[in-house]
This record gives sequence, structure tokens and C-alpha cells, in this order.
Amino acid sequence: MKRTLVIIAHPEVDDSNLQQFLLESSQSLESVTTYKLTDRKYNSKEEQQRIREFDRIIFQFPMYWYSAPYLLKKWLDEVFEYSFAKSELVGKELGLVVSLGTAVENFASGKPEKYTLSEIFRPFEVLANKCNMIYLPTFSISLFSYMGDQKKKRLLIDYQKYLTQEKGNTFKEEEEWFLERLNQISRKKTGKEKEILLQVLSMIIDAREELDELRLLIDEVRDEA
Amino acid sequence: MKRTLVIIAHPEVDDSNLQQFLLESSQSLESVTTYKLTDRKYNSKEEQQRIREFDRIIFQFPMYWYSAPYLLKKWLDEVFEYSFAKSELVGKELGLVVSLGTAVENFASGKPEKYTLSEIFRPFEVLANKCNMIYLPTFSISLFSYMGDQKKKRLLIDYQKYLTQEKGNTFKEEEEWFLERLNQISRKKTGKEKEILLQVLSMIIDAREELDELRLLIDEVRDEA
Repeated sequence: MKRTLVIIAHPEVDDSNLQQFLLESSQSLESVTTYKLTDRKYNSKEEQQRIREFDRIIFQFPMYWYSAPYLLKKWLDEVFEYSFAKSELVGKELGLVVSLGTAVENFASGKPEKYTLSEIFRPFEVLANKCNMIYLPTFSISLFSYMGDQKKKRLLIDYQKYLTQEKGNTFKEEEEWFLERLNQISRKKTGKEKEILLQVLSMIIDAREELDELRLLIDEVRDEA
Repeated sequence: MKRTLVIIAHPEVDDSNLQQFLLESSQSLESVTTYKLTDRKYNSKEEQQRIREFDRIIFQFPMYWYSAPYLLKKWLDEVFEYSFAKSELVGKELGLVVSLGTAVENFASGKPEKYTLSEIFRPFEVLANKCNMIYLPTFSISLFSYMGDQKKKRLLIDYQKYLTQEKGNTFKEEEEWFLERLNQISRKKTGKEKEILLQVLSMIIDAREELDELRLLIDEVRDEA
């Protein structure tokens, strides 16, 4: 399982509804650690040691003037010493979780913001390239305060997957991800709730087996034809 | 004449040979003001008032991890309040003077850095767009410490032009820029030096007149043919 470090660069995490929502969403994930940046002088060796322990590094921030708040750049400037960055990050993943004050559709040529988020966050991609890291697709969240409950539930799932799922997104992988999550949750429950969760789990597994059998059958029919 | 504000974001301006060279190069330019950022809390109204007085704003910095040092982002985050940025910068110019620790040729697809400087500094271009500012071509300086005297002289002239010249770069405009600079310098000199400068000035003006006459002659000959 990937060990994920979420580095949060937000000047007022406690006052941000979205950041609180994301913190709560990641709390139940065993493989995820969150880390809040503040405006202080960093001990670069300590910070480097922290990073070494994770496979996936996530920069999580609100977009301020088409980049992260300065807290993140300060941390990068002080912690990413050249020799460390060039040799000790190889093969780790780097992803961005970015909140936007405007609709994501506005980021495209011919649209108000003229450029895509991929283009605007290019400096992070080039940083990942330089460090021989694997750059993940950016996870953007638009206009959180206008979201209804249904959208927020969807966001929670998508966010959890972004933090923990293996790269690649086949249907089967998604299913496995959900099964693992259900398993984790059921282990923490007792009594009636646990029983229901275990039943749901076995239903999904049964359905999967049935699907696999059907697929075999189809393959056989195909071979005969 | 454009009034230019050079905002310097460098953690150790006094220890940087290049920044000292650039400071000296701009000192003689009447229309240019330099301003060094430090790690302090800004009074946003004061900073906004400073910006209002200039037509051309230059962000001058060494590239750290494909962006400016955090000092600049801190200043932007604190000073560029949305209402100010949207309404009070219209038509002003924004330019970048960036020093690089590697050759500028490395910034292109297929080259080690994979992307061009235009792409890497896109966040500044989008910022300029958002504020209805005019984004100038980036002025980049590679490997200053390896430059010989001749290259440094060329850099000095190019830099002075970048800070003060009107946009567009016809030969005649360049000539006028040099004449104006010579004029400014000669006014500050006395005695023998002043005399020499004035003679150089009149030589250039004579040459220009001769060129203009020749051009007229060519046009006449062409018309007759």
C-alpha cells in the first residue's frame, strides 16, 4: 500500500471549511499522514527525513494568484536542497490537490483564464521531472462552498481514492479499492453495523465471482465461434 | 518616459554578484526605481500606492525550483488584493528579469528542462492577463559568473533597454534610446568628458541625417525606375 504524505499549504487551515472537510476525509485512511505548513524556519534535514518515509507526496492548497500560497514555496526553497532533490525522490509520486474560487471550466484557451490548470501548474510538473518523480494528474476542487451533500460525498470518495489508490484506474482496481476500504471500516465496527458491512462485502465478492464466471463463459463461446 | 519599478526578490541581494551588477546598471537611469523585498509583514495599502506610481513593473529574481523565491509570492499574496489587482493595474506593463543557473538553451522540448521559460513562467503571464496588464517578453540571464567583460557590457545595455525602452524594437527606436541615454549622461558630466560626449552625440545625429538623405535618394531613384 502506498504511504501518502499530504502537505497542506493554507494560511488558515482551521477557518477553511474545505480544508477541514478534507482533513476529516483522510483521517480514516491508515496509509495517509497530513502535515500543515506554517510560516517558520524549517530544519531541512528533519523535513527531508519526513519525505523519505512516503511514496506519494501531495501538495494541497488553495490557488492564490495561479500558484500555491507562499508557505509552500518557502518550504520548497528551504527543504529541497539540490543534492537531496536529485537523488532521494526518484520514483516517488507528486500530486496536487488544488481548490479554486472559480469553475474549472474557465481554465482553457478561449475561456476567461485562457490557460489550463496543467499549463498553470507546469512549474510543479517540471519540479517532478527534475527530481525523477512521477507527476500525478492534478486533483482540483471548484467552488466547494456551493456543493450539495451528494456532491460532497462524491468528492470525499474521489479524494480518498486520489490519496491512496494505485496509479491507473481500471474498473477492477476501483472495485478492489472499495473492498479494501470496506474491510478497513468493518474491522473498526462491532455488532449490527459490522454484520451489515460484512454482508455487503460478501455480496460484492459474490457479484465479482459471478462476473468472472460470465466472462469465462463469453470467452468460451467466442473461442467456439 | 516610462516610470519603471524593479521589485527584487532575492534572499541575499548583497551577496549576489549579479544583483549588485544589475543594481549598478540601473542606478544611472532616472526613470527607474529599485525596491528590495524582505521577509516581513507588508502594509498592503502602502505597497499598492507604490505600484500605482509606475508604468512598468519588473519582478527580478533568481529562478528557484522553476519560480521566484518565496519572497515574491509572499508579497503578491499580501499586496495583490483582488479589487486592487483587477482595477488599478490596467495597461501597466509586467516583465520578468530572471537569472538561471543553467544555459537558456536547456529550456525546450527534448532538452533537459523539457519546457520553455515562457511555459514555466505562465503563472506570471496569467496574473498579468487577469490584471489587464501588458506582459513583456521575459529577460533571462544565464550563467552570469562565467561571463567575460564583453558579454557583461552587452548585458548592461540590454538590461537598461529592457527597463526603460518603449515596447517594440525597430532600429530607429533603438537609436533614439541610445541618443537619449547619451544625452542624460552628458548632462551629468563636465569639462573634457562632456565635450567628447557631445561630439559623439552630434556625430550620431549627423550620421542619422546622412542616412535619411540616402534613403530619400534611393526612394527617388526607385520612383524613376
